Amino acid sequence: MELKNLILSFFLLFLLVGISSTTAASAGKIKVRRPCKRLIFYFHDILYNGKNSKNATSAIVGAPAWGNRTIMAGQSHFGDLVVFDDPITLDNNLHSTPVGRAQGFYLYDQKDIFTAWLGFSFVFNSTQHKGSINFAGADPLMNKTRDISVVGGTGDFFMARGIATLMTDAFEGEVYFRLRVDTKLYECW
Amino acid sequence: MELKNLILSFFLLFLLVGISSTTAASAGKIKVRRPCKRLIFYFHDILYNGKNSKNATSAIVGAPAWGNRTIMAGQSHFGDLVVFDDPITLDNNLHSTPVGRAQGFYLYDQKDIFTAWLGFSFVFNSTQHKGSINFAGADPLMNKTRDISVVGGTGDFFMARGIATLMTDAFEGEVYFRLRVDTKLYECW
Amino acid sequence: MELKNLILSFFLLFLLVGISSTTAASAGKIKVRRPCKRLIFYFHDILYNGKNSKNATSAIVGAPAWGNRTIMAGQSHFGDLVVFDDPITLDNNLHSTPVGRAQGFYLYDQKDIFTAWLGFSFVFNSTQHKGSINFAGADPLMNKTRDISVVGGTGDFFMARGIATLMTDAFEGEVYFRLRVDTKLYECW
Repeated sequence: MELKNLILSFFLLFLLVGISSTTAASAGKIKVRRPCKRLIFYFHDILYNGKNSKNATSAIVGAPAWGNRTIMAGQSHFGDLVVFDDPITLDNNLHSTPVGRAQGFYLYDQKDIFTAWLGFSFVFNSTQHKGSINFAGADPLMNKTRDISVVGGTGDFFMARGIATLMTDAFEGEVYFRLRVDTKLYECW
Repeated sequence: MELKNLILSFFLLFLLVGISSTTAASAGKIKVRRPCKRLIFYFHDILYNGKNSKNATSAIVGAPAWGNRTIMAGQSHFGDLVVFDDPITLDNNLHSTPVGRAQGFYLYDQKDIFTAWLGFSFVFNSTQHKGSINFAGADPLMNKTRDISVVGGTGDFFMARGIATLMTDAFEGEVYFRLRVDTKLYECW
Repeated sequence: MELKNLILSFFLLFLLVGISSTTAASAGKIKVRRPCKRLIFYFHDILYNGKNSKNATSAIVGAPAWGNRTIMAGQSHFGDLVVFDDPITLDNNLHSTPVGRAQGFYLYDQKDIFTAWLGFSFVFNSTQHKGSINFAGADPLMNKTRDISVVGGTGDFFMARGIATLMTDAFEGEVYFRLRVDTKLYECW
């Protein structure tokens, strides 16, 4: 009978819809690895050397016991803890108008090679962006690119999560470095 | 025919249910900006000054190289890193019975104004709450209110995420401050 | 009529499917407290004492003002900040081949008992695992087990969230300790 077939078709259709939506719900979120928001910034770090207090944007605030000139600290600055307040710009020019600040700390945590651990925020307070993005993670900075976690956000970036890909754009001895930060958010509210 | 209409109605109804649930699943979560849990606490910080070791709840453990009395540290304590273990109370009275502890660190990270970066936990072990809430984020503490991220939780706060709104409730020079912390969780398990 | 009953059955069935999937979607994720990924590792921490720079994997880089031998620091090392780069192994043998590194910091943040706050990453770069897992949280280390948060991940652990249960597997004075870390991820992509 035609009517029975019609009902059966509906049955199959609805079952499919039901299953697919249940599956999606089980997964908790659609897992497309495509950012819902993407931001690229540069940040500029000028380390305090005792003489440049006006221009410096960062300073060492901790070093291994027995001083940071011990064998332990070595060439890779193991243990040095640096606090920073670095300008963020849209291009790689230190003198561009900052669109925000990168504020927080990094510490060198490997003896044989430069590797850091980062905890910091991008802080925005302009017409374009208001709020903050919070980052944490390991930065093996001799690699061309490396990923850290976006662990949260506030304001325009309310509850954000994602990945930031770091690239050292410039590195001038122990005086200045510039990071390119490609922030890809995968959870946006 | 009546029966056909009935079937058609079902079809439309199910289609709607199917679509709405699929949409919800696509979005990954219903994005109502209404906390699933909300907690308001005060926390009390008494800075160690070399003489108050019994009452102090926090101490400076790092400061910029060349001492924290350099031009660099200035008036806004740039670079000072403070570790704390502060009591949490339900009201703004320092002498109320603590319901938990706020444990972690803050560091001052701006040269021209007081701004801090926070990494800490609320730790509970009472009949009312067991577990911890973990926080990270920038605290531009001269603003009336500012938001940081709840990046995770354990125990009663298993896998929590959210926002904590901080308000300085009291600030007595460099001796004592009290924060009101309005913790709003938007992801609860 | 038989046909009517059939239609009614379909109606009820679809309604149930619809409701259950909608509910799941509303909740945002199926809240089964069963990890989607689980990893158990040991990590080994050898503290620098001024003489063991070759073997040491960690060093104190900050201590309360007025030195860490003040009344404030006391027996529980309040305020001491330690940076580490510890090998991770699959069993509890310090000399097993490391499968990765645990890199970051801990700080002692309680005056009367050993309690720490941790910020670190597991960093993997082997055929088995590539990427990092980022951790933050309070570690009341005199408890047999304690939980911290997995706040994010990269590479193989892209966007991970979860809980890590820590257990002190060995503790040799102030020279060496070994942690068993049972990492349970509840959000996997």
